[in-house]
Amino acid sequence: MDKPYLQCTKCKRKYSYDSTQWCCEHCSAPLNVEYEINFSLDNIDYKQLGLWKFHNFLPPIKNKISLGEGNTPIVKISLLNKTTYLKLDYLMPTGSFKDRGSFITISRVLDLGVSKIIEDSSGNAGISIAAYGRYAGLDIEIHGPIDMPRGKVEVLKKLGATVFLMGSRVDAHKRAINRKDGLYIGHLYNPFYLEGMKTVAYELYIQLGKDAFRNIVVPIGSGTLLLGIWRGVKDLMNAGLVDGVKILGVEAAGYEEVYENIYGRSAGYEKTEVADGLRVYNKPRLKEIVDVIRKYGDVTVVDRDMIWLAYDELWDKGFIIEPSSAATYAGAVYGIKSGFLDEPIVIILTGSGLKMI
Amino acid sequence: MDKPYLQCTKCKRKYSYDSTQWCCEHCSAPLNVEYEINFSLDNIDYKQLGLWKFHNFLPPIKNKISLGEGNTPIVKISLLNKTTYLKLDYLMPTGSFKDRGSFITISRVLDLGVSKIIEDSSGNAGISIAAYGRYAGLDIEIHGPIDMPRGKVEVLKKLGATVFLMGSRVDAHKRAINRKDGLYIGHLYNPFYLEGMKTVAYELYIQLGKDAFRNIVVPIGSGTLLLGIWRGVKDLMNAGLVDGVKILGVEAAGYEEVYENIYGRSAGYEKTEVADGLRVYNKPRLKEIVDVIRKYGDVTVVDRDMIWLAYDELWDKGFIIEPSSAATYAGAVYGIKSGFLDEPIVIILTGSGLKMI
Repeated sequence: MDKPYLQCTKCKRKYSYDSTQWCCEHCSAPLNVEYEINFSLDNIDYKQLGLWKFHNFLPPIKNKISLGEGNTPIVKISLLNKTTYLKLDYLMPTGSFKDRGSFITISRVLDLGVSKIIEDSSGNAGISIAAYGRYAGLDIEIHGPIDMPRGKVEVLKKLGATVFLMGSRVDAHKRAINRKDGLYIGHLYNPFYLEGMKTVAYELYIQLGKDAFRNIVVPIGSGTLLLGIWRGVKDLMNAGLVDGVKILGVEAAGYEEVYENIYGRSAGYEKTEVADGLRVYNKPRLKEIVDVIRKYGDVTVVDRDMIWLAYDELWDKGFIIEPSSAATYAGAVYGIKSGFLDEPIVIILTGSGLKMI
Repeated sequence: MDKPYLQCTKCKRKYSYDSTQWCCEHCSAPLNVEYEINFSLDNIDYKQLGLWKFHNFLPPIKNKISLGEGNTPIVKISLLNKTTYLKLDYLMPTGSFKDRGSFITISRVLDLGVSKIIEDSSGNAGISIAAYGRYAGLDIEIHGPIDMPRGKVEVLKKLGATVFLMGSRVDAHKRAINRKDGLYIGHLYNPFYLEGMKTVAYELYIQLGKDAFRNIVVPIGSGTLLLGIWRGVKDLMNAGLVDGVKILGVEAAGYEEVYENIYGRSAGYEKTEVADGLRVYNKPRLKEIVDVIRKYGDVTVVDRDMIWLAYDELWDKGFIIEPSSAATYAGAVYGIKSGFLDEPIVIILTGSGLKMI
């Protein structure tokens, strides 16, 4: 089969590019999009809105939906005397980095001629999919856990999404995939969503050059951001622009699935629900995440106290972030103290604090 | 006195550039900064963070504080069949266009060696000043009306500001200017704040060229955004880049001070508190605003129903805005129906909806 096509991440079975299959029908593993990528700075199309400026390095899409996402600022600070760049990826149309996945996911949905979509989310991804979906005129159904933060629920409802909140995050996923009345585009599986995530690596390269990838600290919820960064770094390496990457992944206590897989034990902290964006267990792309971490970095776990301490510190400096963003910052503090991180450090802050008030 | 200096907008008395006078000591009118400005696209300094890329066209400032503000996206829509560009100026570090004033105001405060600042605000300006102030390590005191939206109060408190909420917006102003323990930097008066506002005109020119100024729709609260745009347009005209501007100012019913001044009567709607950012009466820069509107445009008034209708319409399209932003959109709808606005239209959306949930 010629590229582009979809391919199972496990059994490598191929599916047509126009397939609406959301996971492999044989082994239920996530699919990837396989397509030709040749990144070059000269082929960035600055006339396009938002992240579509990178369309030459993304899967082919006809409908180009954008709410002006991307191009988020970097603020330089000193963290424990180390030069540190905060990538404010929460300064997005819907207040989180999830818009990097939604602009392309929703555009692809339009290409497929679908009119109703179904998503499961702890909050931010649902809001992002709902906003882009409404902009595109789609019907939206979001399934979430019963304890989704109130502010996020309100935003979802105001966006005109039909919202079902019951049980845990895992329950929400099970409900969503069993709905028949619409296309399931769950971001934990959706291969287009994942491709959109790599744009953060392109932006970081444009903003900081090679320095962006010397010590990059990334939260791990479903792991799409980490995998997206790795995909982007690969493109940059293939283009001869970057030599490699060193990543520190950060998980929340009680949801440290990657940590357990690598270290064979839990980190020993009490489980915390504080960082709602990181409360993902049974990560569909766990194997891919573990492979990247084993090869290019390390993973650390932060608990409730570490998260709140970082949260207060960031707000006190004027950064309006949610606890899930603070968790990443807390992980960076650990990474410096343990000696894993040298400078310069890049910390990706992923969610706005304005939804949590 | 050589430029730069401060100058009374009414009696033209001059003050030293380093004066901490917040209004004219003789006639109590606001002061302006007078300085040399020569705008040119070639002198934009893209290596600087945030709005400091325009430092060559701003008053001289040593300390350059930035949280990555500016460069907000433009999304093209069709409004009543007219080509319309929404400038999403709420996608800012603190969720409103106020950051265009705060980055320079707080930087100037540092130049003056001040450690505590006092501000009065209906909400967004206070949040913006507080975030930039905290980033700069200053003590912050904010005075607001008793009915400031709950979400905005929460954000202010989390930022570590000391918050006093009593009486009306006018009461808050009176309280703030009578405080002795700190420098009053109220954005309704502050001349540096006003200069920062003009950056939106520069950005619009970079994004849309001359088209940006054919039919631009701007909210009028204190009027600093409108006056900022006019200042920016003047710079662009002096540089030979723009021929002129046509502005539609939008006020909220019951706060239509500019409308009353121009038309000699109220617009006849019931007073509304819905658009909290537009609830400014006794505008210190009223005369300047009226002069701009008389010469370059018109003013319209929107009431509660018009604002909520626009609010629902914007959310339903995926734009997460607050009622004060919706008011401007409602004004644009009126402007199209009345025939005042041709295409292309630019609507500035000023405040995020995430603080209001």
